Amino acid sequence: MSEERNGREAWARLDLERARRTGDPEVVYGEGKTPDQVVALLRRLRAAHPARAALATRLSDDTMTRIGEDLPEAVVDTVARAATLGTLPKPTGTVAIISGGTSDQRVAAEAALTVRCFGADATRINDVGVAGLHRLLEAKPEFDTADVLIVVAGMEGALPSVVGGLTGVPVIAVPTSVGYGASFGGLSALLGMLNSCAPGVVVTNIDGGFSAGVHAARIARRRPE
Amino acid sequence: MSEERNGREAWARLDLERARRTGDPEVVYGEGKTPDQVVALLRRLRAAHPARAALATRLSDDTMTRIGEDLPEAVVDTVARAATLGTLPKPTGTVAIISGGTSDQRVAAEAALTVRCFGADATRINDVGVAGLHRLLEAKPEFDTADVLIVVAGMEGALPSVVGGLTGVPVIAVPTSVGYGASFGGLSALLGMLNSCAPGVVVTNIDGGFSAGVHAARIARRRPE
Amino acid sequence: MSEERNGREAWARLDLERARRTGDPEVVYGEGKTPDQVVALLRRLRAAHPARAALATRLSDDTMTRIGEDLPEAVVDTVARAATLGTLPKPTGTVAIISGGTSDQRVAAEAALTVRCFGADATRINDVGVAGLHRLLEAKPEFDTADVLIVVAGMEGALPSVVGGLTGVPVIAVPTSVGYGASFGGLSALLGMLNSCAPGVVVTNIDGGFSAGVHAARIARRRPE
Amino acid sequence: MSEERNGREAWARLDLERARRTGDPEVVYGEGKTPDQVVALLRRLRAAHPARAALATRLSDDTMTRIGEDLPEAVVDTVARAATLGTLPKPTGTVAIISGGTSDQRVAAEAALTVRCFGADATRINDVGVAGLHRLLEAKPEFDTADVLIVVAGMEGALPSVVGGLTGVPVIAVPTSVGYGASFGGLSALLGMLNSCAPGVVVTNIDGGFSAGVHAARIARRRPE
Amino acid sequence: MSEERNGREAWARLDLERARRTGDPEVVYGEGKTPDQVVALLRRLRAAHPARAALATRLSDDTMTRIGEDLPEAVVDTVARAATLGTLPKPTGTVAIISGGTSDQRVAAEAALTVRCFGADATRINDVGVAGLHRLLEAKPEFDTADVLIVVAGMEGALPSVVGGLTGVPVIAVPTSVGYGASFGGLSALLGMLNSCAPGVVVTNIDGGFSAGVHAARIARRRPE
Amino acid sequence: MSEERNGREAWARLDLERARRTGDPEVVYGEGKTPDQVVALLRRLRAAHPARAALATRLSDDTMTRIGEDLPEAVVDTVARAATLGTLPKPTGTVAIISGGTSDQRVAAEAALTVRCFGADATRINDVGVAGLHRLLEAKPEFDTADVLIVVAGMEGALPSVVGGLTGVPVIAVPTSVGYGASFGGLSALLGMLNSCAPGVVVTNIDGGFSAGVHAARIARRRPE
Amino acid sequence: MSEERNGREAWARLDLERARRTGDPEVVYGEGKTPDQVVALLRRLRAAHPARAALATRLSDDTMTRIGEDLPEAVVDTVARAATLGTLPKPTGTVAIISGGTSDQRVAAEAALTVRCFGADATRINDVGVAGLHRLLEAKPEFDTADVLIVVAGMEGALPSVVGGLTGVPVIAVPTSVGYGASFGGLSALLGMLNSCAPGVVVTNIDGGFSAGVHAARIARRRPE
Amino acid sequence: MSEERNGREAWARLDLERARRTGDPEVVYGEGKTPDQVVALLRRLRAAHPARAALATRLSDDTMTRIGEDLPEAVVDTVARAATLGTLPKPTGTVAIISGGTSDQRVAAEAALTVRCFGADATRINDVGVAGLHRLLEAKPEFDTADVLIVVAGMEGALPSVVGGLTGVPVIAVPTSVGYGASFGGLSALLGMLNSCAPGVVVTNIDGGFSAGVHAARIARRRPE
Repeated sequence: MSEERNGREAWARLDLERARRTGDPEVVYGEGKTPDQVVALLRRLRAAHPARAALATRLSDDTMTRIGEDLPEAVVDTVARAATLGTLPKPTGTVAIISGGTSDQRVAAEAALTVRCFGADATRINDVGVAGLHRLLEAKPEFDTADVLIVVAGMEGALPSVVGGLTGVPVIAVPTSVGYGASFGGLSALLGMLNSCAPGVVVTNIDGGFSAGVHAARIARRRPE
Repeated sequence: MSEERNGREAWARLDLERARRTGDPEVVYGEGKTPDQVVALLRRLRAAHPARAALATRLSDDTMTRIGEDLPEAVVDTVARAATLGTLPKPTGTVAIISGGTSDQRVAAEAALTVRCFGADATRINDVGVAGLHRLLEAKPEFDTADVLIVVAGMEGALPSVVGGLTGVPVIAVPTSVGYGASFGGLSALLGMLNSCAPGVVVTNIDGGFSAGVHAARIARRRPE
Repeated sequence: MSEERNGREAWARLDLERARRTGDPEVVYGEGKTPDQVVALLRRLRAAHPARAALATRLSDDTMTRIGEDLPEAVVDTVARAATLGTLPKPTGTVAIISGGTSDQRVAAEAALTVRCFGADATRINDVGVAGLHRLLEAKPEFDTADVLIVVAGMEGALPSVVGGLTGVPVIAVPTSVGYGASFGGLSALLGMLNSCAPGVVVTNIDGGFSAGVHAARIARRRPE
Repeated sequence: MSEERNGREAWARLDLERARRTGDPEVVYGEGKTPDQVVALLRRLRAAHPARAALATRLSDDTMTRIGEDLPEAVVDTVARAATLGTLPKPTGTVAIISGGTSDQRVAAEAALTVRCFGADATRINDVGVAGLHRLLEAKPEFDTADVLIVVAGMEGALPSVVGGLTGVPVIAVPTSVGYGASFGGLSALLGMLNSCAPGVVVTNIDGGFSAGVHAARIARRRPE
Repeated sequence: MSEERNGREAWARLDLERARRTGDPEVVYGEGKTPDQVVALLRRLRAAHPARAALATRLSDDTMTRIGEDLPEAVVDTVARAATLGTLPKPTGTVAIISGGTSDQRVAAEAALTVRCFGADATRINDVGVAGLHRLLEAKPEFDTADVLIVVAGMEGALPSVVGGLTGVPVIAVPTSVGYGASFGGLSALLGMLNSCAPGVVVTNIDGGFSAGVHAARIARRRPE
Repeated sequence: MSEERNGREAWARLDLERARRTGDPEVVYGEGKTPDQVVALLRRLRAAHPARAALATRLSDDTMTRIGEDLPEAVVDTVARAATLGTLPKPTGTVAIISGGTSDQRVAAEAALTVRCFGADATRINDVGVAGLHRLLEAKPEFDTADVLIVVAGMEGALPSVVGGLTGVPVIAVPTSVGYGASFGGLSALLGMLNSCAPGVVVTNIDGGFSAGVHAARIARRRPE
Repeated sequence: MSEERNGREAWARLDLERARRTGDPEVVYGEGKTPDQVVALLRRLRAAHPARAALATRLSDDTMTRIGEDLPEAVVDTVARAATLGTLPKPTGTVAIISGGTSDQRVAAEAALTVRCFGADATRINDVGVAGLHRLLEAKPEFDTADVLIVVAGMEGALPSVVGGLTGVPVIAVPTSVGYGASFGGLSALLGMLNSCAPGVVVTNIDGGFSAGVHAARIARRRPE
Repeated sequence: MSEERNGREAWARLDLERARRTGDPEVVYGEGKTPDQVVALLRRLRAAHPARAALATRLSDDTMTRIGEDLPEAVVDTVARAATLGTLPKPTGTVAIISGGTSDQRVAAEAALTVRCFGADATRINDVGVAGLHRLLEAKPEFDTADVLIVVAGMEGALPSVVGGLTGVPVIAVPTSVGYGASFGGLSALLGMLNSCAPGVVVTNIDGGFSAGVHAARIARRRPE
């Protein structure tokens, strides 16, 4: 190759200007990166934005272990498969995260941690499914007082439609890859949510807990204090 | 062509033995047939099974008009786009047909008429959707006393999951082609219903009101009298 | 049919309780309804909620003409293919609606009108595309001051990624069915937006201007006055 | 996270009210759960409904081994990859389960065990395929006397159409993921069954032995004793 | 344009050498051609190969009418939507064409006419479907004596599997676009046939009566006379 | 709407700066535009870039007629469904456009006209298909001397692979929507071309004659004069 | 389970009557079967049809090893992943099997072995691809004298079109799963072959060497001796 | 098998004539080949074309290790997963390869190495993404002076549209399989690039760095020296 423009550490050039443009720092997306790379990137983010927590998502088992060893001040969330480094911001506004089955909790946990890192508070409402409406109706007071809702569901992805019919709080739907057969890796839930008959439901990618968390926190933290 | 085995009226060889094998007569599927063909087939079914009503489904406007002119004793259901010729059987057992939006009523009506022709009674519960749970909860006593439920829905197809979580009555889910964009002609509702988290939900083809009606009537009419 | 539960006007049972549950009135979805039905439903909504504007969307040419004749106090928006009846609410907060090609303006107009009906103000930023970045950069001050952004695009659906990288204002992406060949009726734009590399982008159904408008207005009108 | 609503054992909140609402107890879906979680959930179900058998499905090898060690009174079915704990109910009515190739027997076995747990009797008719009609015709007396039929098939999924043409007993079709190439993980069989030309065929998800078993048992146990 | 290599009548350069290479002349594929173009091409084929019949397929209504007017010696088959010009060859060997529903006869007729033009005899066996096995079993002697079978079916496309299990005569399966909903324009039948459990079934494109006819005739005419 | 940023003629804001950035002026994409809009846009382009020809593509019959009436100096190409206004540039380098069936000529013509407008010469090689190799081999000297090749094909899209194996001239493959059944609107040809075993084949959207023309001209006009 | 109809060895009920019906014995499909099961089934086939070779296909490494140990008289073909037991029949007629890349040879070998077991002779023509036409043209004399051709190809699947344009010998196309990216596991080659512009090309499932071999042998062995 | 035409080393018949026909030597495609086969093929290519470098792509870890041991004069690029043997040609013209995320560098490296082997120079511009426009704008002078651009991107695949709007240099877009959920293995990026609104963008298969490199080098090396 005649020229290698970005020489050493091309894998590591973070967009350190992002915070200035968007108000939020860049995040380390762990998929396809080695433990060494993730640790180095977390350190660099930490140095560039000492006042804000750095976040790394989609971490492998090896990377989580390495972070625990190399960055003892980091907090690793093994359910969310994510880690934070630095003090989380004081939260403004509240995001309620509603999920159904046990298998969806990985995505719900990623959303919750992201919400916290991006400056809002996160409440979890678990084990709520469309085939057991009584639990959902019990939880209505709780989600009516939130600033925004994240609704996580796999399989048929019907939960956001039911929630969206019960409340006027903005709803973000997150389809998960939970299911088998004709769920086609989350396609079923994704299409269900995109076609929701409840007005105002918006959707993220399959297993998109991070994107939902960012969108939700940006809404919630606008609440007047 | 050296040989035309079925010569005259190849389009019209009905399976008149079906009643003996399955207990139910053949039905005229109107799609792709001319008005003349449908009228002739209805007459032949009528002659072969004088004791049972003959049914024709998926009729064009022209065919419905022609049946009205040529077979004055026939009853045409313009919502279901179907016609019956002869007295409907005395019903045994009840099928409740639950549907949501206005646009799904065409499919619900086809299911209801089929149920009646195949020997059970049909009750309609309209305008029940997942985004308005109160109506659904109001209707629970009504569908709890039915022998079997047909649940018709388009868009995200979530209604059968919610109904299936409220009752132990067998549920047949019928996806409809109602929707736009990523509903992909009913694929979204079909996948949603196939992935229902409510146990025991079974599914028909998109817009499969006729199949649902046959399956439901065969269950309902087993009710001891 | 043994029983028709919803007898007369089954097509017209509006969910008049929705306003109480969600804070917003129901809307008339015009697709698949006759002009008579749409006019009658608009009148009923108007009577039930005299203090709020009634909205009807996805109107056919015939229905728009009929509304003009039968409801002279209604305002018909022929680009958005929608109509309102009654005074629009005093707006709180601002939604900026960014769109590219001429063909996307139908969806952008539906979003804008929905935003107004649901209580926020709407600003349009047209003719902004990823293949002409200078316009987008010129418009940055305008969308940085909005409370929420709706970004409408067809074809490859790249616009929300670029906008989302420039600002921290929440972004709602709306894919449109504009394109040909492998756009597959908007699937290309939909997938592009779901996979956006800009954090926090959420997505609606293809041509989902109405859903985007509801979600955006609910966010914007939370702005402290 | 500011608040963890469901704290301890969020993975374990079973819907113990389901039996009251639907007449059937909840079932442990083993996929994605650890052996410890499955064992604990089975114990809890057992305690909550001492009079009924508890069922766990889609078990891993490890979980089946663990159940054998920790719950010696449980019965593990290694073909069905499922386990029961407690006495199966006295059966009412009979479900005949028809399957073709060796590879489909996993799904057929899951359906049979589910039928028994949900209160009906199960008969197996194996090695019946569309490419060997003589076996199918031999078995006709057997399936004509059942209350409902479950037909399991992979590859082209043609078996339910042939069975449905031979009998008036209700048919539930279960596509399996058996096949290669353009079977696309069971999609071929699923589409084939949804498009069955035999009236009244209803379909479950791919490999949906459990759903078929629940639907079938609910029908069969309605037989007057 | 600087240069137009094929000047006048670029639409009409027939591959007149094809007969020498493959033993069969080129055929006029009518789709997307004007009546004038089809008539001119038929005349040219006729002139180039006076000893063999010329064939034109997939003709519009207008083109069939025009051929009737301009080429009175041509024979138009309105079911097959095809026309022949010149004496059909003396047939060698026999192809039996088995089809089910009325709607599939268009494709079966195209296959039969193609068989005749390519030098074999064609027998039609209509109204044979998987949901009415008795007819199929009655026809077994007839198709056992053919040299090759073409089996035409829409919807679930199961017929070739059943036929292939009954006979050792080579089977060519032709999926049709007949069906609705999840038949997806013939995709369901196509996938079903590709996954046939009967060994030796080969498949054509959806509605591929012409291709099946060519393949079948080439096999059948190899029969020793 | 509180504010309409782009007031009058929002449909008509052309990117007149494009020529400066990319060396080529914007083009009028006619789909979804009225004849009035296309005529006005052509006039504006003409005024902004008097030294270059303006191009409008994907024109409806009505628009082509209107251009003929309102812009007598324009040249309308009814096969390409496109029009040019102004003198075409003096060509540098040559693009050979190879196509097969009659139905693909619409796309080949659009590519050829685009090549000319963007500054290179265009040669057409028609009626060349993979099932008639002798023609292709005859044309080899012609395409070996071109600067770049555009290969247009529908159905299985195999032509670019064969051409790419015969020559080292760069190949651009254009799939067309020509075909039926499992061609799925050009998807078959598109996938075939993307998976070409000939190295260096690049692909455009289905029916993407315009894109191919732009890419090809940019390559060809680099030829030293 | 109340009743297990097929008790012992349900996995092993071979269709021993198939030879009488179709002239060919059943074959052991090894996928999903244990080495023990395959060995036992081969022995049973051998005992039932001592005059014909028994064939087992799609064998795992373990099964091939076990066959070598337990059935020393068996012949294992490790490329085809298949085994035969007993003397192959004296061949009648010849099938030429044409393939391109190294990776396709697994499928070509399975086809060749199947042809031999079903009573015809098999010739292999390897390393022939559309991007190297000279090899194909060299081989023309060889495939012109065969009774039938099997053409195996992955990636874009163009080879059968080119072969079909060169000869009148019947062509069976076999798509393989060889490729990457948008080959989608062989879908690209499958669609390409189904849309072949060469008349008379018929297609098997992806990697369907066995089906192609059966169809081809049935044709070839009809050659008068 | 009666005859094995290509006996020994069928896996190894390289198309050594390709260099004469196309100006470029054949390349060893490593996928599905053993280390022994790759080494032997590299040696044969080297011997046949001593004046040009031989290239092997898509190498497994084992093959890269073996090449290092057996061919010490070879250069292995572990990022590109490729190896070269022999002196690279003196480059003519320059290809700039633009890529975004870390995960796309594997594909970008394969493209760069291919460019070099096929006779042009390669410049890398890394870490440029649509969500960080400032970097892209900074790099504009660099890519404006290249002869051709290769733009590599996964996820939504928007980068080529943005680049194509900034420059008139020809753009080749390479979608990668980087992403999750609804990226569907690169389908999202592929569709996005095919539908690019920037004129003249052409596309390769998913992860098609090699094809892009060949096409680009053939363009670049035409630059007058």
